[in-house]
Amino acid sequence: MPSYRAPVEDVTFLLNDVLGMDRYGNLPGFSDLSADMLAAILDEAGKLSGEVLAPLNKSGDAEGCTRHADGSVTTPKGFKQAYDAYSGGGWIGLSADPEYGGQGLPYTIGAIVNEFSSSANMAFSMYPGLTMGAIAALHTHASEEIKRVYLPKMIEGPWSGTMNLTEPHCGTDLGLIKTKAAPQPDGSYKISGTKIFISAGEHDLTENIVHLVLARIDGAPDGVKGISLFVVPKFLVNADGSLGARNGVSCGSIEHKMGIHGNSTCVMNYDGATGWLIGEANRGLNAMFVMMNEARLGVAIQGLSQSEVAYQNAVAYARERLQGRALTGVKQPDKPADSLLVHPDVRRTLLTIRAFNEAARAFVLWTALKSDVAHRSGDAKEKQAADDLLGLMTPVLKGFLTDRGFDNAVMAQQMFGGHGYIEEWGMSQFVRDARIAMIYEGANGIQALDLVGRKLPRDGGRGIMAFFGEVEGFIKANGENEGLKPLLGALGKGLGHLQQATMWFMQNAMMKPDNAGAGSTDYMHLFGVVALGYMWALQAKAVEEKLAAGEGEKSQLETKRLLARFYMERMMPETGTRLARITVGAETVMALPPEAF
Amino acid sequence: MPSYRAPVEDVTFLLNDVLGMDRYGNLPGFSDLSADMLAAILDEAGKLSGEVLAPLNKSGDAEGCTRHADGSVTTPKGFKQAYDAYSGGGWIGLSADPEYGGQGLPYTIGAIVNEFSSSANMAFSMYPGLTMGAIAALHTHASEEIKRVYLPKMIEGPWSGTMNLTEPHCGTDLGLIKTKAAPQPDGSYKISGTKIFISAGEHDLTENIVHLVLARIDGAPDGVKGISLFVVPKFLVNADGSLGARNGVSCGSIEHKMGIHGNSTCVMNYDGATGWLIGEANRGLNAMFVMMNEARLGVAIQGLSQSEVAYQNAVAYARERLQGRALTGVKQPDKPADSLLVHPDVRRTLLTIRAFNEAARAFVLWTALKSDVAHRSGDAKEKQAADDLLGLMTPVLKGFLTDRGFDNAVMAQQMFGGHGYIEEWGMSQFVRDARIAMIYEGANGIQALDLVGRKLPRDGGRGIMAFFGEVEGFIKANGENEGLKPLLGALGKGLGHLQQATMWFMQNAMMKPDNAGAGSTDYMHLFGVVALGYMWALQAKAVEEKLAAGEGEKSQLETKRLLARFYMERMMPETGTRLARITVGAETVMALPPEAF
Repeated sequence: MPSYRAPVEDVTFLLNDVLGMDRYGNLPGFSDLSADMLAAILDEAGKLSGEVLAPLNKSGDAEGCTRHADGSVTTPKGFKQAYDAYSGGGWIGLSADPEYGGQGLPYTIGAIVNEFSSSANMAFSMYPGLTMGAIAALHTHASEEIKRVYLPKMIEGPWSGTMNLTEPHCGTDLGLIKTKAAPQPDGSYKISGTKIFISAGEHDLTENIVHLVLARIDGAPDGVKGISLFVVPKFLVNADGSLGARNGVSCGSIEHKMGIHGNSTCVMNYDGATGWLIGEANRGLNAMFVMMNEARLGVAIQGLSQSEVAYQNAVAYARERLQGRALTGVKQPDKPADSLLVHPDVRRTLLTIRAFNEAARAFVLWTALKSDVAHRSGDAKEKQAADDLLGLMTPVLKGFLTDRGFDNAVMAQQMFGGHGYIEEWGMSQFVRDARIAMIYEGANGIQALDLVGRKLPRDGGRGIMAFFGEVEGFIKANGENEGLKPLLGALGKGLGHLQQATMWFMQNAMMKPDNAGAGSTDYMHLFGVVALGYMWALQAKAVEEKLAAGEGEKSQLETKRLLARFYMERMMPETGTRLARITVGAETVMALPPEAF
Repeated sequence: MPSYRAPVEDVTFLLNDVLGMDRYGNLPGFSDLSADMLAAILDEAGKLSGEVLAPLNKSGDAEGCTRHADGSVTTPKGFKQAYDAYSGGGWIGLSADPEYGGQGLPYTIGAIVNEFSSSANMAFSMYPGLTMGAIAALHTHASEEIKRVYLPKMIEGPWSGTMNLTEPHCGTDLGLIKTKAAPQPDGSYKISGTKIFISAGEHDLTENIVHLVLARIDGAPDGVKGISLFVVPKFLVNADGSLGARNGVSCGSIEHKMGIHGNSTCVMNYDGATGWLIGEANRGLNAMFVMMNEARLGVAIQGLSQSEVAYQNAVAYARERLQGRALTGVKQPDKPADSLLVHPDVRRTLLTIRAFNEAARAFVLWTALKSDVAHRSGDAKEKQAADDLLGLMTPVLKGFLTDRGFDNAVMAQQMFGGHGYIEEWGMSQFVRDARIAMIYEGANGIQALDLVGRKLPRDGGRGIMAFFGEVEGFIKANGENEGLKPLLGALGKGLGHLQQATMWFMQNAMMKPDNAGAGSTDYMHLFGVVALGYMWALQAKAVEEKLAAGEGEKSQLETKRLLARFYMERMMPETGTRLARITVGAETVMALPPEAF
């Protein structure tokens, strides 16, 4: 039976020692957050994850969701009680607006809780996760009237949320959406159409389900400029806030998937369902992007989360499994064989995963803090700078963390030998669950294209230049630090490759966009490797300072120091290969005629 | 519904134009094989795979195997009929000794058929595949008496074979085997113990199942030097060859696995089962290695096979799915969107898979020919040289082809977006089935260790030096060929990295074996990348010659030329990263104390 323990110490180190959480005290939400309160939150979130959610992960996978003949869906045993514990603890509204019942804490804290609960039970965590995204979209774009009706119930927990974009013939290309919205005399709309792949579309956890739906108002222009966003509740809401008649939306079937079996993935049929416009007509994609951007960070965290829980279980197995002897001679003479941890290739594998996890966590928190500044700062310039980096990093986080999170889950599974392939051990589930994160909320190829095609050139490259400046500044400022020197050399080389690749796109992809497309995925990975390298440099600096000051737990700090070195030695060299692939351009890729594939 | 079409044209090109099959006419089995006969075999194998085996792949996955209360196991619907068609066509004994009813054709032809049937239905193909391995082991090591009893029935098909190595507490480390063999007065042994992960251990396809079992004779030395090999039939065999009493071996349970659901993975309980010694006492591992080496090549082929079938289905989907528009402007103005094939990142992904497939296939056949020479040549020197390369390449093939085959199946699944995650589309199955190939027959970390620890230094590095000499010779001999020059530059650079890595091990791993262990997986991949590069160079030479001579189908040859270029541009650059990781050594990897993981 796999287990999970929330990495509270690592989070505390990152927030306090690396990212300087205390510097944000002037922002709303941060000022109320004392060190004691933070510790209590992390502790409680860790307990909820390890003791309530994790024990339901494997059983939820084995049981899955069941759709009944009346269209209702039952979630796995225990999910309802777990949901009540989750919502009852106030976790859904952790960083939501206090005006509507939220706790107003930083988004950054929400991201941490998200990692913990997703590691413990990814399929479960999607239910509250989607609600949080829907809350954010409604909060930004809905009328005050709609907010008053929906937000308090969603924040408290009795109502949940979904996002409805995909249709059978369109996933990425939302311009092809066919779902229709017919205006009614009372200002509402009748929504008709079919949406597919709707996570948490129907279930038994909440009294009501609030669907955010993209549809086309009668007579709207073709393409993405004719799409509007609607709120469509499963049950209509009476004037007094009580639930009224069942709306014309129902679950037609649920999908049989590779993983996340505990989450119901629904085909949703809209048969003249009553909905209300959110934001401006024909600007629905713009409104939905609030939810999608938040969801993309959430999915990035899922990548990390599966890598983390897979690592923890692989280490536990490697420690206990006795097999073979160390190459350098017997290490456990009193045992029939040595532990797997004596084998260099096992160590290399585990360190590869862990060196990713701790830097990916830092990168998530670094970006989450940008999100908090972008949304909460009163200083327009600071806000803009944070928003630039948030926009730039979102596709990198989503694409890179989910690609690597999956790879890492596979590597962790490999540590179990044949046992890793048997469902009983739970490693297969981490791999199968992690797999979806590379696909949904914009497949990773789309993230890569968003990065090179939209985010890099935005505002004359202001975001990327700011990032280059920050990393260069760090390298320069710490060049004389003996502890950091070897790390900074590797980071500088990787950064140089990223800068060369960026320059190459500027010179070669403006006129020939295929050159950007053909190099986009390699660029996204190159960017991710360098960003995580920077995160290790930041951590290493904090480590050296604490060791010099005689603070902190020495063995934990020395492990960090070693992981930073491992990352620079083993993972940073990849940047050269990525650069070579990018600068070779699109010619060969585009030369083959379609019929030759 | 996924489909499969056997790549007969590519195999024909490789055998005839690249690998010079006609040069082997002096070997037994080859001389009888006319071009017409070869074409007929490939055609029939293709039909069997595409029309009989492939249609049962998805249903076999969904249904799985069922163990009944009496210990019997039912395979998925249709498997029995398919097995009868497979064995009835003489495919099991294709390359087996005619003395016992085999057709005596080259092993190389068997490898091709293996690829086709494994692409079509990997779980099914394991049933005859294990029988073929058991045939090889018995043929090499069993007494004539045992051969006469078992081989004809196994070759014909009514009896199947298995290999029993793993026990609950030992997988890789076979020295820990506990299963006991008690000598009986009649020369037989009573076998007692539990074996796990026994593929095809119990099923309803054959009248009898012939288990090859590793066990320890009472009083034998500890460790691997006390292990013997036994043949243990499910039903004892009467003197007249008819089936007698049920033997004391039974299936205690079957595993619930991530994939290959159509193959029964059994816990086998031996309760004083009657068995007979194969080969010498305490030399069982040696005898089993015949089966394991053949099985390792078979598993390598499984990696290729899933990559191939996943590619075919991804191309079919990409061609038909209309989504988005080309970056360079609308390509299908009469359609609501362009085909996925216009997008550079989709093309890059597909070409990455295909450039692997066609070189991996060449590498399999190149090595299979070495196997044929090693086993059939009358020239001792030629035999030895072939055996050197066969031994060297076996771990590279097994480890590299299965790691990449899995990665490729994942990439192909990604082309389907959300649909790739839904079991209905079949892409998840290719990923889940491919996953096991990285684990069984020696997990890939063990292959890497076998390569650097055993195969590289064997006979003073004679095998690796021969390979270096062959590739260097090719580069030198073709240096003036204008068509090949740019390819040979990239190949030479990759080869140089492989040579540097090899030299680094010689200088740094003799005294410090952890340096070999910490670099072993990177070395295996470095080797694989260079070997496939050499395969592309060989193919490119054949292409240039045929184009110059005005022979062959021009469009097929031009596609090959492009794939060779793609491989050198996009895949060869990886060698630099691998070399950097190897030469950094084991220090950081070994520094972390076990408790810090």
